[in-house]
Amino acid sequence: MSAALPSLTDVETAAARIAPHAHVTPVLRSRSLDRLAGCELHFKAENLQRIGAFKFRGACNAVFGLDAAAAARGVVTQSSGNHGAAIALACRLRGIPAHVVVPHDAPQAKLAAIRGFGARLVPCAPTLAARDAAMAQVQADTGAEAVHPYNDARVIAGQGTVALELLRQADGLDAVIAPVSGGGLLSGIAIAAHGLDPRIEVWGAEPAQAADAHASLARGERVTDMVPDTICDGLRAQLGTLTFPILRAHCAGIALAGEAEIVRAMRLIWERLKLVVEPSAAVPLAVVLRERERFAGRRVGIVLSGGNLDLDALPGLFALAGPPSQNA
Amino acid sequence: MSAALPSLTDVETAAARIAPHAHVTPVLRSRSLDRLAGCELHFKAENLQRIGAFKFRGACNAVFGLDAAAAARGVVTQSSGNHGAAIALACRLRGIPAHVVVPHDAPQAKLAAIRGFGARLVPCAPTLAARDAAMAQVQADTGAEAVHPYNDARVIAGQGTVALELLRQADGLDAVIAPVSGGGLLSGIAIAAHGLDPRIEVWGAEPAQAADAHASLARGERVTDMVPDTICDGLRAQLGTLTFPILRAHCAGIALAGEAEIVRAMRLIWERLKLVVEPSAAVPLAVVLRERERFAGRRVGIVLSGGNLDLDALPGLFALAGPPSQNA
Repeated sequence: MSAALPSLTDVETAAARIAPHAHVTPVLRSRSLDRLAGCELHFKAENLQRIGAFKFRGACNAVFGLDAAAAARGVVTQSSGNHGAAIALACRLRGIPAHVVVPHDAPQAKLAAIRGFGARLVPCAPTLAARDAAMAQVQADTGAEAVHPYNDARVIAGQGTVALELLRQADGLDAVIAPVSGGGLLSGIAIAAHGLDPRIEVWGAEPAQAADAHASLARGERVTDMVPDTICDGLRAQLGTLTFPILRAHCAGIALAGEAEIVRAMRLIWERLKLVVEPSAAVPLAVVLRERERFAGRRVGIVLSGGNLDLDALPGLFALAGPPSQNA
Repeated sequence: MSAALPSLTDVETAAARIAPHAHVTPVLRSRSLDRLAGCELHFKAENLQRIGAFKFRGACNAVFGLDAAAAARGVVTQSSGNHGAAIALACRLRGIPAHVVVPHDAPQAKLAAIRGFGARLVPCAPTLAARDAAMAQVQADTGAEAVHPYNDARVIAGQGTVALELLRQADGLDAVIAPVSGGGLLSGIAIAAHGLDPRIEVWGAEPAQAADAHASLARGERVTDMVPDTICDGLRAQLGTLTFPILRAHCAGIALAGEAEIVRAMRLIWERLKLVVEPSAAVPLAVVLRERERFAGRRVGIVLSGGNLDLDALPGLFALAGPPSQNA
């Protein structure tokens, strides 16, 4: 783990490092969503990033920042989701081994994606102890460098490149809102945005049914005993020891949204922006529509964090949103 | 109706005319789709155009090309789909009346969209005769200028701006493939592409169950007696008297795809490009995947024509594609 707090310079270094590999994603607008929200929305389309999510930025920065000797020993991480795919792709691009520890009951489609990028899957029992043991075993066997999904300064700096681009693409933003889970994305955005302009409000958006970041900032200490119960499969992690103090120093607040509100926001993004986004990516729009007075008339950046979801599950998701008459 | 054949200069004039109003849409790539197709695909994302489809380009060019006196009398067209919405929005932007003749049995959601852009809806019986009579009545009452959805040189020139942008955004294309219905989009693309580089192959993509363009080019005369039976609700029109000779002069061919192939291609675009596209927009990818040897190893531009569809209809569409194992 890399433990020093990252700075704006680290984010700028990350941007240069990942530039040959990552996409500069577009920022999209919708007049009809602006009218609905009562403010000016600038959507950063990280669902169009490689592997379909912002996670590629942090993984790419960590992998390409290794010196030659460390890189030759490979990288290990634990994630059956977007971070696992991101590490796998970054390692393939650098030509080094990737070991991804995954619970043996993870969805086959996700595991196939990670394997498809050339990583070695290391199955373990679905417990924290088994996962940590598997990570330690891989490190002992190979000397691979561990890259945590969010509690890692290199990963945080990489995710911060989202904000460097967004603030260049959309002038004069008053606020930026990103989903918060472990806090890597939001921490990186906060460091980059406040490094460039301390007046920008940085907001986290979190499902009300997985509100550990909200509770942690309210209580002034990390809350680690909450059990998430949300459709947002990307937002079930808890703040880390590195990300919590960053968010505490930088965040205007963590706004919450309910499950039906999140699905309705997701559907609005599909219909109005014509973008496929996963439920996690819709939480920022859901909180803007829920708290209209807070953002009224302002210029707001929205990070659409990713677009990876099972299309066969859509009818079930849409059913959660209630009857169509409530859609907008 | 404007009857002179448009030229590259007309397309360039259209590009300058619509520039203040239309989006320059991005061109997206997917390495995994390239591997599936065995060629290099450059997707022009017209689903991200205003009103969610390329149709805004032609409508905008026609509406903003009117002189002040004609513009003051307004515009009339007939379309319950994307062209109706496009005319409505273009007229609102210019601040002139729009009259849109629609069959009274058209889906309410589509009519609401057109009305939402400020057009006056003129319902008529769902027959050709009733529609023409309604158009004539509006023109007699108001002096409004008729703008046909595709058989109009101003509209064709506007649609051609898709190719001007695409050829600038993606260097060295060997071929461009666009869906064909009435032929306005494909005609505009052919004129622009061949004006810039006569070596580029221009292909139409058409549902096998609505293959009047294919039959017309094969027979050397317009075939107007076919009854379309396709899920591609944007591709049920027939070639016009203006578009047929343009396509005859320029097209390498019209390639066909079946309904299940179209749905599978649509789903691939959703999953790999993270873009919401309507079935009509997926026909070019469907034909590339069906005729791999034809495009093997080449650089191919694909026009994703639009993204307007009813999300509640998705389960039915996906069912048409067969079991997931067939989804490539």
